[in-house]
Amino acid sequence: MHYARIRGLGVVCITYGVGALKVINTTAQAYAEKSPVVIISGAPGLKEQLRNPLLHHKVRDFDTQKKIFDQITVASTILSDPQTAAFEIDRLLSAALRFKRPIYIELPRDVVSTSIMGHYRHPLDIRESEHSDPDALKEATVEATDMINAAKRPVIIAGEEVHRFELQDKLLALIDRTQIPVAATILSKSVISELHPLFIGIYEGAVGQEKARQYVESSDCLIILGASLSDITLGMFTAQIDQKKTIYISAEKISVRYHHYDNIDIRDFIHALVDANIARRDNSTSSSSSSSPTTLTNERLAIASTVPRCTHGKNISVKYVFEYLNSCLTDDMIVLADAGDALFAGADLIMHRKTKFLSPAYYASLGFAVPASIGAQLADQTLRPLVIVGDGAFQMTGMELSTAIRYDLNPIVVVLNNGIYLTEQLMLEGPFNNLQPRQYAKIPQVIGGGRGFLVETEDQFNNAISEALNFRNAFSILDVHLNQNDRSPALDRLTKNIAKRFHHSSN
Amino acid sequence: MHYARIRGLGVVCITYGVGALKVINTTAQAYAEKSPVVIISGAPGLKEQLRNPLLHHKVRDFDTQKKIFDQITVASTILSDPQTAAFEIDRLLSAALRFKRPIYIELPRDVVSTSIMGHYRHPLDIRESEHSDPDALKEATVEATDMINAAKRPVIIAGEEVHRFELQDKLLALIDRTQIPVAATILSKSVISELHPLFIGIYEGAVGQEKARQYVESSDCLIILGASLSDITLGMFTAQIDQKKTIYISAEKISVRYHHYDNIDIRDFIHALVDANIARRDNSTSSSSSSSPTTLTNERLAIASTVPRCTHGKNISVKYVFEYLNSCLTDDMIVLADAGDALFAGADLIMHRKTKFLSPAYYASLGFAVPASIGAQLADQTLRPLVIVGDGAFQMTGMELSTAIRYDLNPIVVVLNNGIYLTEQLMLEGPFNNLQPRQYAKIPQVIGGGRGFLVETEDQFNNAISEALNFRNAFSILDVHLNQNDRSPALDRLTKNIAKRFHHSSN
Amino acid sequence: MHYARIRGLGVVCITYGVGALKVINTTAQAYAEKSPVVIISGAPGLKEQLRNPLLHHKVRDFDTQKKIFDQITVASTILSDPQTAAFEIDRLLSAALRFKRPIYIELPRDVVSTSIMGHYRHPLDIRESEHSDPDALKEATVEATDMINAAKRPVIIAGEEVHRFELQDKLLALIDRTQIPVAATILSKSVISELHPLFIGIYEGAVGQEKARQYVESSDCLIILGASLSDITLGMFTAQIDQKKTIYISAEKISVRYHHYDNIDIRDFIHALVDANIARRDNSTSSSSSSSPTTLTNERLAIASTVPRCTHGKNISVKYVFEYLNSCLTDDMIVLADAGDALFAGADLIMHRKTKFLSPAYYASLGFAVPASIGAQLADQTLRPLVIVGDGAFQMTGMELSTAIRYDLNPIVVVLNNGIYLTEQLMLEGPFNNLQPRQYAKIPQVIGGGRGFLVETEDQFNNAISEALNFRNAFSILDVHLNQNDRSPALDRLTKNIAKRFHHSSN
Amino acid sequence: MHYARIRGLGVVCITYGVGALKVINTTAQAYAEKSPVVIISGAPGLKEQLRNPLLHHKVRDFDTQKKIFDQITVASTILSDPQTAAFEIDRLLSAALRFKRPIYIELPRDVVSTSIMGHYRHPLDIRESEHSDPDALKEATVEATDMINAAKRPVIIAGEEVHRFELQDKLLALIDRTQIPVAATILSKSVISELHPLFIGIYEGAVGQEKARQYVESSDCLIILGASLSDITLGMFTAQIDQKKTIYISAEKISVRYHHYDNIDIRDFIHALVDANIARRDNSTSSSSSSSPTTLTNERLAIASTVPRCTHGKNISVKYVFEYLNSCLTDDMIVLADAGDALFAGADLIMHRKTKFLSPAYYASLGFAVPASIGAQLADQTLRPLVIVGDGAFQMTGMELSTAIRYDLNPIVVVLNNGIYLTEQLMLEGPFNNLQPRQYAKIPQVIGGGRGFLVETEDQFNNAISEALNFRNAFSILDVHLNQNDRSPALDRLTKNIAKRFHHSSN
Repeated sequence: MHYARIRGLGVVCITYGVGALKVINTTAQAYAEKSPVVIISGAPGLKEQLRNPLLHHKVRDFDTQKKIFDQITVASTILSDPQTAAFEIDRLLSAALRFKRPIYIELPRDVVSTSIMGHYRHPLDIRESEHSDPDALKEATVEATDMINAAKRPVIIAGEEVHRFELQDKLLALIDRTQIPVAATILSKSVISELHPLFIGIYEGAVGQEKARQYVESSDCLIILGASLSDITLGMFTAQIDQKKTIYISAEKISVRYHHYDNIDIRDFIHALVDANIARRDNSTSSSSSSSPTTLTNERLAIASTVPRCTHGKNISVKYVFEYLNSCLTDDMIVLADAGDALFAGADLIMHRKTKFLSPAYYASLGFAVPASIGAQLADQTLRPLVIVGDGAFQMTGMELSTAIRYDLNPIVVVLNNGIYLTEQLMLEGPFNNLQPRQYAKIPQVIGGGRGFLVETEDQFNNAISEALNFRNAFSILDVHLNQNDRSPALDRLTKNIAKRFHHSSN
Repeated sequence: MHYARIRGLGVVCITYGVGALKVINTTAQAYAEKSPVVIISGAPGLKEQLRNPLLHHKVRDFDTQKKIFDQITVASTILSDPQTAAFEIDRLLSAALRFKRPIYIELPRDVVSTSIMGHYRHPLDIRESEHSDPDALKEATVEATDMINAAKRPVIIAGEEVHRFELQDKLLALIDRTQIPVAATILSKSVISELHPLFIGIYEGAVGQEKARQYVESSDCLIILGASLSDITLGMFTAQIDQKKTIYISAEKISVRYHHYDNIDIRDFIHALVDANIARRDNSTSSSSSSSPTTLTNERLAIASTVPRCTHGKNISVKYVFEYLNSCLTDDMIVLADAGDALFAGADLIMHRKTKFLSPAYYASLGFAVPASIGAQLADQTLRPLVIVGDGAFQMTGMELSTAIRYDLNPIVVVLNNGIYLTEQLMLEGPFNNLQPRQYAKIPQVIGGGRGFLVETEDQFNNAISEALNFRNAFSILDVHLNQNDRSPALDRLTKNIAKRFHHSSN
Repeated sequence: MHYARIRGLGVVCITYGVGALKVINTTAQAYAEKSPVVIISGAPGLKEQLRNPLLHHKVRDFDTQKKIFDQITVASTILSDPQTAAFEIDRLLSAALRFKRPIYIELPRDVVSTSIMGHYRHPLDIRESEHSDPDALKEATVEATDMINAAKRPVIIAGEEVHRFELQDKLLALIDRTQIPVAATILSKSVISELHPLFIGIYEGAVGQEKARQYVESSDCLIILGASLSDITLGMFTAQIDQKKTIYISAEKISVRYHHYDNIDIRDFIHALVDANIARRDNSTSSSSSSSPTTLTNERLAIASTVPRCTHGKNISVKYVFEYLNSCLTDDMIVLADAGDALFAGADLIMHRKTKFLSPAYYASLGFAVPASIGAQLADQTLRPLVIVGDGAFQMTGMELSTAIRYDLNPIVVVLNNGIYLTEQLMLEGPFNNLQPRQYAKIPQVIGGGRGFLVETEDQFNNAISEALNFRNAFSILDVHLNQNDRSPALDRLTKNIAKRFHHSSN
Repeated sequence: MHYARIRGLGVVCITYGVGALKVINTTAQAYAEKSPVVIISGAPGLKEQLRNPLLHHKVRDFDTQKKIFDQITVASTILSDPQTAAFEIDRLLSAALRFKRPIYIELPRDVVSTSIMGHYRHPLDIRESEHSDPDALKEATVEATDMINAAKRPVIIAGEEVHRFELQDKLLALIDRTQIPVAATILSKSVISELHPLFIGIYEGAVGQEKARQYVESSDCLIILGASLSDITLGMFTAQIDQKKTIYISAEKISVRYHHYDNIDIRDFIHALVDANIARRDNSTSSSSSSSPTTLTNERLAIASTVPRCTHGKNISVKYVFEYLNSCLTDDMIVLADAGDALFAGADLIMHRKTKFLSPAYYASLGFAVPASIGAQLADQTLRPLVIVGDGAFQMTGMELSTAIRYDLNPIVVVLNNGIYLTEQLMLEGPFNNLQPRQYAKIPQVIGGGRGFLVETEDQFNNAISEALNFRNAFSILDVHLNQNDRSPALDRLTKNIAKRFHHSSN
């Protein structure tokens, strides 16, 4: 999935039944967070299906598996007919590329070597059916341009679709031409360099960065550009977005205030905005303000260049971990933050030009980050992954580090080890939140590669990070022992807001 | 699932989305192999679903998850209405108990504390709708009795439904009254003590035990009692079963030769057979025969009491592992064999009275055994689990041993470590079958408990087993290094037959 | 539909929407009573469907109509792809011929002149997939033969499937060889000549002919051959059929007592029975009995040759109508009895060799008979239709007689005119049962052809029938005025039994 | 259905199977053209359904009928549970009233007398869920008002939803306040009195009235108010509507130019427009123009008050029929025009204040008008129906006039008798278009009431109409013999356009 996010398309090949049903959750995440993954599953031969009703791996009927994947893909097919196979494959690939979501292709065992018959009636042209209605496009562009030009303090919130539809260069062009400041969401973090002078931060309602919130919520023209508005991106619905002031642009529709345009492709609309007559802003006048983009970027620059003061022997804290990591991030690093405090605190990491930040910020499936680091580095070998993961999430999938060894990959894995499912604990206390302890630093001994570091103090952390950065042969894992009550300010805000919402809705 | 197999019902509680979709494969196995598991999933509140279309964890629509579970359960419900909740719960539990398959109950967050309204209109009586048609039952019983009495060498194949429907005592009663010999299938192995004087072995066509095959296939009256006839239980369709000589008894229907009876409950039919006037056999006359049940049981008794000759320093082999394990099995042990050679070779282990053998013999999902040992010992703490698992399967789920530590369980885990997906390799060679090596004996150091043994020779194996049996505080793990070409005779026969079938059907 | 019953396949071509939805009820009847009808519907062009969402005649979606027909056909298709069209057409025709039920083919307007592409991969061979399992066939034949031979008084009930699957000659062969007496049901009436010496009458439980009932219910071996067991054929469930004594043969399955055989084609089974070693009965010994087949046939012969005594000026009665018609029936006549007393009393008409009797005896849709007479005579122009129809049913479809004029057909239509929905009135009285009177004898003046007769007395009826038989140019219609309380003994028995059942089940 | 159009809700009670499936086409029309009809079908008792799989009238499964109605209703239910019955009935009635479309309620026979249990949890409040989003409503109202005020020649096209949602008074208020001219469609004809000074005619593209077309298509602001845009209302897509100048208001959505508003109830929006600050137009300045509303209304007034010149003995023509009818229409008459030339020519009839015009102008199902006249007069007994129907349509349902006699209704039925399916003939010639002739004027003799008139000349028509208007005891029927080549100018234009479209799309 993460390979797909970086490369634009990913493929997974699986066994019928026992293989396929193990990737359901991952496919669901790819659907929910829009990653175009091609799932190719084997299946019993068509003739065997007729003759032998009880083949092993079969669950119920031979089409049970397809029916399940139908729920979590945008298109699916069984390649049973050589006359239609070419057309079907094209149809499915187009769907994956158009909707940026997974597709499912089932290949019965006895057709693997069959030649495709017939002409290719519909050669793959994924843009074919996406042309915008030119009149609607024109009207919407004019209306949006007028609304932006009439505003005093417009702001852009750039979302994950900017990344999925490869619109990052166009976003930069739009910002450069208009000088409109831009925020990101937690799901789209790093869609733009966070040291860009017009970047104002991660907007997440009352849960996110306070200055970004003030800037966004005091704007008189909010341009939401490809951002899903979920409970998480809206900071547990603490976000104060006034629809009357909003231009909402997504792959599904374009909305201006309370009305909508259909049949406009998001790419066409962004291109049109770049070419439109939007006035260039002069942010210099407001640069004295404490919350001007320039000020905010300068603050981030300061943070990114400040190494926190290290006290020898002092117990390590979440705060120190992220401050120190902030000072170490380099252009060639990609950060993979798993669900939990790794993600919430990770929102405050400052992503340099060319750095990347990947997370399951909407679907929030634990155990995302370690496998993601493998996919990401395989997709782009010039990247060095930095994985930040809680101990709960690591226990689910962390042993995949042996795959990192197999393919000579070298992620740095920081395990935030507090012995507890912290996010859950903050909502409902109980012994079920306790984790069985593991010696994460000893994993290299089991899987025969990598280096492990036990970290209990600030200086140990500095040393471990330093060694890990220098050790490029294989992965490094840092077992960072944290106090169970320690947590990031971001998580603190979030869990309070979740609790508040739950109590309200229960009454 | 394995808890459910031992206790008659199991329950799993899961989070909406990310939790639920991770148990799809396991639920599918429970469906395919008939284990009654109650799946209770949380869900967003009904009101939240209306107001907030984009809650985290949601994949597509709020009912996407239920639609998926509909495919792999016998009944499902969303408890949204307090007036019907009691009725719905009863309906679902009845379905689980009647069909011995999983059910799905979804519980929106905002109804958790709601009181159930209305009268319990249909108190739970799972036998209610299962009464047999008395005339059909009578006719079928008479016909089966006549056919058995007319036969010279009837034989019973007892299947997994005998276990699922708790008919083991009735099976024993039937055998004791009639003295008819009995075989089992690989999926039902241990449904009867394998030291019972009338037990003749595991029947699996040309793939299974040869003497059992001869006995079964030369019988003139085959009583198949609750056994699924899949490609695996039929030894890749090498089984020679003559429908003209067969009485087939299952939860779905009762068949005699080429005709069928509907509306007969399997339990009623077994009860009726026990009470029927079936003649008592005298097997003594044939006891001279080399393949009489008595002879076969004596052979197994000899095997079970023979410790194989141990050569100091001699490389360990699959054959030695199983011969030695056979000599160690005691009444309080339960064997959990994962898919692969662990299962196929495991078929030759001799299960004593009260011992158990659990395997994914139909669904064949790798990674079954370690988690199953935890469920099994939790279900019955008097049991000591013996897990036999290949290295490929262990890499999928073996780290669950930390859960064994958490609950003070003490399985003995024998890892058959040959560095390769052997079963796959025998079908199609290639580097994708190679496994990344791990030091399984060092896992106790990572998860903080248990004992590890590195085993390369026969004497090391004897010592390790001996120590593991004496060490009862926590799990033991034996990393048994095998030659990559080593395999059990059973696997050899199986893969040859799979290959043969595949080549035939491709032509 | 009636054309299809006589010719083996019928076709109806209809307009999309307003045409198609008007034949739903008729298609449903064809499904319920097994008539193979090909429904070909036009549809908007595929391209128009894309471009123009609101074409006239469209109800909801463009596939709404197909979804409706899916419910009442055994197979359906939209011919949208020239590559698969040939295969699809073959598939559908096979289904119609195999299951004797309707199919639905939709033809978009813009593909009408498209050439079919590709090879005919599956040439039409409707017998291909119907071969019986030879072992099951053999076992079932032996078992049935033994059971019949062991019986003292076996009897056959021949049903409508004998007609639909063209097994009438085989039935005759079976009877001739074995001399087993045969009954029919009200739905299969005339499946065998009712003057055949072994025919014993229409069996319909307590509602049908008493002597037939006695014969059937005292039999010790009941061979039900292709008869649907519905509430009507079972005489509102007054039939006393003992499953222990029954061999039940149908297109769906073969049952003997309480067990069933799958995978036996009804045709193969009848052929096998004809060739089997079933003993020839000697019915002469019992010919003295008052209810021997010979006696019963002689009684029918007497009835069929007796002209009832006509009293000049005496008001006509239902009893007289049918007695007189019985004396007029000739070999070239086909009787079409509509639902209501026409059908129930019609059961007592004696069908000669080669005569036919068609009715909606299961689906019981009023208004069947007049249109059916047109289809029947078009299918076989050597037949002369005799339509017996109540005034209620006639008001629904009787004006179709103008179609009879158009195609030079000459049915004789006897309208049983009592001014009321009599069958309904007997169940629940009320003014809604009253019919608005019409002057049926004047219809020829409106539609410009045919002859009308007003009949109030016995002599008028004799004269009218006589003139109608001689007038062969066009239809004749007899408006037979009956007393509202007059009814046939058969209807009397039926409505009493319906009322009894309704009261029981309501308590 | 027509009762429902006049009264706001209609009910039909039907027998299971044979009754229900005969109203499929009518229900489909009610769905397509938005008439709220409640269909109540009986069904076998729930217990009978379990016990007796083969009850007469059943087609396939017991739920087959419901599945069919699911396709052509907005909601359906089976009242099987007394605990939920009250809620279900409310839910369905709300759906019918909200969407103005049919619903389906199935009532098993054995629950008819069951008492409803439980509280009425959701008392019927059909407005409950329809409140508009106030912000969207406000924005849309302001935008529409601005657009209308900025236009020079705005015009309203009032459609059938104005009638279905009972917005006729509001429409009048809007026109009176703003003096904006108004057109209707052929489906909404008579939604406003056609003598209203601001009414400009029926707009139907190139197929409709030319002056109305000019007026509408030269407008710079088109307010489409509740009109379906189908191929027929758009004059076979000859209508030239410029979306850039259009405000489109419907029950589904509100659109302005190329954008849309969701969540605005059509009623709220019309109310808001009436109260909005829309400028009052002064049409007097343009009254000199030949196509001003005043001029057009004066033309219609002239037509409506001109009796065409009658030539004694001259063959009657379509043109004369409609001109003469125009001069006879009075305020208490309702015109029911069947599909075909009756409808197309009928578009030119001038509907006075309070008169009505009902037609199947979208669904175009032949045979609509005679039954519709019965429903209409039963719904409002102060109306006198004038039915205009072709001979083809009349042959389908005309005998329902006997129902008119039963209920003392007195429609005047004008049969346009040309012996042919004229509309079909114009598209594709062939003998299948010929109709079997009938003597329609003699129908009164058959059904025992009403008066018939044979009309071949203009003077005969005048006399017959005159007598029919004076004869109020029962129906009158005029059999108007037309030349087969005679047709209205409207039909001429229509068929030419259909033919043009078909030829284009075939190429």
